[in-house]
Amino acid sequence: MIDSARLGLPDFTPGSVWLVGAGPGDPGLLSALALHALDRADVVVYDALVDPRILALAPAGAQLDYAGKRGGRPSPSQPDISARLIRLAREGRRVLRLKGGDPCVFGRGGEEALALAEAAIPFRIVPGITAGIGGLAYAGIPVTHRDINSAVTFVTGHSSGGAVPNGIDWEAIARGSPVVVLYMGLRQLGAIAARLIAAGRRADEPVAIVSKATTPAQRVLVTSLAKAAAAAAEAGIEGPTIIAVGEVVRLRAALDWIGEVA
Amino acid sequence: MIDSARLGLPDFTPGSVWLVGAGPGDPGLLSALALHALDRADVVVYDALVDPRILALAPAGAQLDYAGKRGGRPSPSQPDISARLIRLAREGRRVLRLKGGDPCVFGRGGEEALALAEAAIPFRIVPGITAGIGGLAYAGIPVTHRDINSAVTFVTGHSSGGAVPNGIDWEAIARGSPVVVLYMGLRQLGAIAARLIAAGRRADEPVAIVSKATTPAQRVLVTSLAKAAAAAAEAGIEGPTIIAVGEVVRLRAALDWIGEVA
Repeated sequence: MIDSARLGLPDFTPGSVWLVGAGPGDPGLLSALALHALDRADVVVYDALVDPRILALAPAGAQLDYAGKRGGRPSPSQPDISARLIRLAREGRRVLRLKGGDPCVFGRGGEEALALAEAAIPFRIVPGITAGIGGLAYAGIPVTHRDINSAVTFVTGHSSGGAVPNGIDWEAIARGSPVVVLYMGLRQLGAIAARLIAAGRRADEPVAIVSKATTPAQRVLVTSLAKAAAAAAEAGIEGPTIIAVGEVVRLRAALDWIGEVA
Repeated sequence: MIDSARLGLPDFTPGSVWLVGAGPGDPGLLSALALHALDRADVVVYDALVDPRILALAPAGAQLDYAGKRGGRPSPSQPDISARLIRLAREGRRVLRLKGGDPCVFGRGGEEALALAEAAIPFRIVPGITAGIGGLAYAGIPVTHRDINSAVTFVTGHSSGGAVPNGIDWEAIARGSPVVVLYMGLRQLGAIAARLIAAGRRADEPVAIVSKATTPAQRVLVTSLAKAAAAAAEAGIEGPTIIAVGEVVRLRAALDWIGEVA
């Protein structure tokens, strides 16, 4: 039992919105502020990536409101979601906007916050553990290591249309970052790997594909840059994935503290 | 009050070490696993960057063991710290190794985990909120924003000797990452800014320097790449800082949800 009173947590006032990161999946990675918000929310507007074990923590009387977006399927648009948050807050509810990972890491939390600010709705941002750090740690992969990298780049491998995002200078990323972490990169993994190799990264550079990180269904596939896309297809890896490219992947051999869950 | 039993948290077994990220400072950002570990630890081996409000959550009987390292002062070496963790675990204690931020983001958590693995000490990694994401969110700066960046690079601005780290290709980072986040970069900010500008970043590109992020002493200085080092000196900014370079800094004008605390 955790005495949240000792933490001096702020009130979740009616008519306000908290933009909360739920982390990669393990409910143990929820922050005290996230748990506090779950405990008090009148309505929880949640995304596809939020783990069901986390939603189960909401109070019995809370309204659970799905706002998931998945490529190719009809789903609420971003302006619709922002409008819904504003409407719910104006009704005087405590609105918990719950997102997988961190709201500000490829999560459009900033966009929703801007809409709230423009509508003069009080809001709070509650950061969460991002999968590119915490999900890799559960796979025994530290995202930085002193002898390997003083820089790490997080990239989304997925534009809103599903293609490799425009405007990414893969050649510069390949040269600048010994470790590259891809979010939502599974579908474009072959194309991205080819660009990194063309920019000088070794074809046999280690790659880890972590599926459903930190959940009981976590799977980790260690492969190489050249073989990654084919290996993922052959192994039937499913999203969501977080993909690490770089020598830090080799540390997993010693640091796989959780073991194969699947 | 948070019912941790509902979260199904794992036992913290005697003779094991948990490498735990304490987050940037706000105790509300501690994870349920971190709070659980603090509640049960026999000994807490903590760094300089861990907030005193967080240490105050340890049980009255727990031993608090300072292992802080600060540039230029005599302090325990990394091998000494790892040896201490191993010794305490072999004595059958529940050893909580508490680090500011996330243990695997420029935190040498991987090195300590490797030493534990080699000594066959059971361990667990508990990720924390890293300041480069959560600290910026408390300053109203989302680290990614759809129209601004599909990539973000985290860089340490400080080698173990205090200089700009070797082996960082600033030119490639400048080209590849619309947003660059510097850890421990205050001392070398002038040199780093000059390299980024030489590589083509605009002299008037916005920079935010966030000091003591998420604590009651948080201060935020918004400046430009060319003026950042001088402005920080003039304002008397103190470490620890997290520094954001890029257009996302402009979003703070609308998204400063916490306001100036200082």
